[in-house]
Amino acid sequence: MPEFLELVSPDDALQHWMAYLPAYPLETELVDTSLALGRVTAEPVTASYPLPSFTRSSMDGYAVRAADTFGANDSLPAYLRLVGEVPMGALTELSLQVGECALIHTGGMLPDQADAVVMVEHTQIARTGEIEISHAVAQGENVIRMGEDVTLGEQVIAPGVRLRPQEIGGLMALGITRVCVFRRLRVGLISSGDEVIPPAQELLPGQVRDVNSYSLGALVEQHGAIPVQYGILPDRAEALRTTAQKALAECDLLLITAGSSASARDLTSQVIGELGKPGVLVHGVSVRPGKPTILAVCDGKAVVGLPGNPVSAMVIAILLVAPVLQKLSGISADRPRGTVTAQLSLNLASQAGREDWVAVQLRRTAAGYQADPVFGKSNLIFTLVRADGLVRIPAAATGLSAGEMVEVRLI
Amino acid sequence: MPEFLELVSPDDALQHWMAYLPAYPLETELVDTSLALGRVTAEPVTASYPLPSFTRSSMDGYAVRAADTFGANDSLPAYLRLVGEVPMGALTELSLQVGECALIHTGGMLPDQADAVVMVEHTQIARTGEIEISHAVAQGENVIRMGEDVTLGEQVIAPGVRLRPQEIGGLMALGITRVCVFRRLRVGLISSGDEVIPPAQELLPGQVRDVNSYSLGALVEQHGAIPVQYGILPDRAEALRTTAQKALAECDLLLITAGSSASARDLTSQVIGELGKPGVLVHGVSVRPGKPTILAVCDGKAVVGLPGNPVSAMVIAILLVAPVLQKLSGISADRPRGTVTAQLSLNLASQAGREDWVAVQLRRTAAGYQADPVFGKSNLIFTLVRADGLVRIPAAATGLSAGEMVEVRLI
Repeated sequence: MPEFLELVSPDDALQHWMAYLPAYPLETELVDTSLALGRVTAEPVTASYPLPSFTRSSMDGYAVRAADTFGANDSLPAYLRLVGEVPMGALTELSLQVGECALIHTGGMLPDQADAVVMVEHTQIARTGEIEISHAVAQGENVIRMGEDVTLGEQVIAPGVRLRPQEIGGLMALGITRVCVFRRLRVGLISSGDEVIPPAQELLPGQVRDVNSYSLGALVEQHGAIPVQYGILPDRAEALRTTAQKALAECDLLLITAGSSASARDLTSQVIGELGKPGVLVHGVSVRPGKPTILAVCDGKAVVGLPGNPVSAMVIAILLVAPVLQKLSGISADRPRGTVTAQLSLNLASQAGREDWVAVQLRRTAAGYQADPVFGKSNLIFTLVRADGLVRIPAAATGLSAGEMVEVRLI
Repeated sequence: MPEFLELVSPDDALQHWMAYLPAYPLETELVDTSLALGRVTAEPVTASYPLPSFTRSSMDGYAVRAADTFGANDSLPAYLRLVGEVPMGALTELSLQVGECALIHTGGMLPDQADAVVMVEHTQIARTGEIEISHAVAQGENVIRMGEDVTLGEQVIAPGVRLRPQEIGGLMALGITRVCVFRRLRVGLISSGDEVIPPAQELLPGQVRDVNSYSLGALVEQHGAIPVQYGILPDRAEALRTTAQKALAECDLLLITAGSSASARDLTSQVIGELGKPGVLVHGVSVRPGKPTILAVCDGKAVVGLPGNPVSAMVIAILLVAPVLQKLSGISADRPRGTVTAQLSLNLASQAGREDWVAVQLRRTAAGYQADPVFGKSNLIFTLVRADGLVRIPAAATGLSAGEMVEVRLI
């Protein structure tokens, strides 16, 4: 049985793999903005209106000509003639002459010749039709000028942006009720292994249920892509090849979880190598869990051979597959990812030269978060169910010490 | 126009409000586990099988009786009789006698009487039917015992857990292909304001498009709930009351964004107060943006009056509505939320006694993240489109200084 001859670090593996991934122009589609949360813009969005689209008050009060209030204060107020009230949501036909003011509400449109607003708190009604102003305002005070948020023609959303609630709101503010986005990525999933059966099937001795198709499928879904299930295949090259070819033709990216034995992994590697050029680029990564990972590009599409162990498969999917999902989905720049800083509760040993990722549970204490490693040599899926995140032990280290502050990547 | 007399801190406001929220037992439903990502468990999930369900090898090698390898090393290997190969995915009928071994693959079922596995690297074929063992193993070495991950009857997922990819996988590992979850929360959304029009409508002078229904709707969606749109209402009590009553009857929680003027906000408060007992609990929070927030409970349902300003509405939705969405959705314990630590690039002033939340853009530098405040007094929705997160200026502070390290809450 061949051993992995050259193990590369996860970062190098990812870089090497990505270098072979072609620019992958996904088709675009128009979707309703109200349904576009999480979709990725395919075109720059520009403003065909300025925002706000008219100069408006940011306060309840009186629209004035600022010059009329100069010098006004409590002991020497200014008196202005009230000429009307600005209606909400309509064009005002008011125009202020020198010495005049108009009642205005927050969001109301400034009348012609008005250039500032005096807050209602700084006014009182002197007598019918006359307002006492006890506070001078500068030009533009308590006013939001037309185009102050967005100018006409300004690019407001770049292409390659995954839409958040605020982008949905921003598009609506501009009257853009349909938005051009990339279609969702289709990710094919194949599980293999003679011992693997569908979850609904009754378990016979020696069999295990398929976990990876579903945990990875959900992870794919979390990244805004569509998981496409191709089922479970036995450890036979012909069957695996036929299904992998079909899946690769129908999908944008293919994830194959290998059977757990070395021969099953070799089989996966062989089949992936035959799917197209350049084929297998990385076979074996110096990371634990996840060493027997295969990264490939076959005729322009990314193919991954993931370890059969469910924890290894998830960790590799998080570390290596997720960034490629993002890239292929058309996302042009990753947003920063939040982490939790916590104090490690136990010593963690690790082998130098290999990056380790350890599942931890977070516990709130008076002093902040504590990270408790989730042990269990089985490293089966419930290790991750019990965990809140992963802690990285760098390749250069031989472990981490209890009491150290660590950065926890939430999962 | 009445001013807010008593302003409470956001934390106190939330606590006060939540204290009035009744236990809210949502109906439950059975959903396919493969479609349950993000749903919340309504019942404890227990294992009706141990995991693994049989004692299996964690290596490729030979299943042995550990005692037969005692003392074996390179210079004095042990020799064992090879009696067969363990098939993958099937019951093995092999049983080891003293001095016997069987070929086994990772994940294979240990034969009867075997209690350890020797890695293939520590073996060679001496001659046909005889294996040379150059490394002693202890009982249980390279073996995952039945039930080591999960024991029969163990609670594996608590009620009130929002399902992540690993829980989906874990459920499948146990053959649980349908899972009992709470139904999704229905959140009613009403926008009000005489100046507000639907996004698809042509803008006339003085009008603004409805942003809040959509930015808040997307935020509701992000939290796994269903936004239900009730449209835009004019600033008239009767119309608002009728629609609010209908929405409250049909939904689990109601968000009303008030028109932007003080009188519109008072109208909202009045209408909310009449929807049911105890009515308005908080009117005005010492936070910026978001001061004119109304928190209410009306006949057992949460009702919120949000400021009409889109940034204020979003900030309050993030700070105060999101925790209540989680609670009402049946989530029993929040998972830790990741943040980004960054260096503030500019001084930020703030008024003591009021908590401020400032939108910032994050910039990667060699020294880590830098947080650049997103300015613009308009505080319109594109402030948040330009931002990666929010920085809190505590009520006790009068600002933050350039160069300070701040915790950024990603949005």
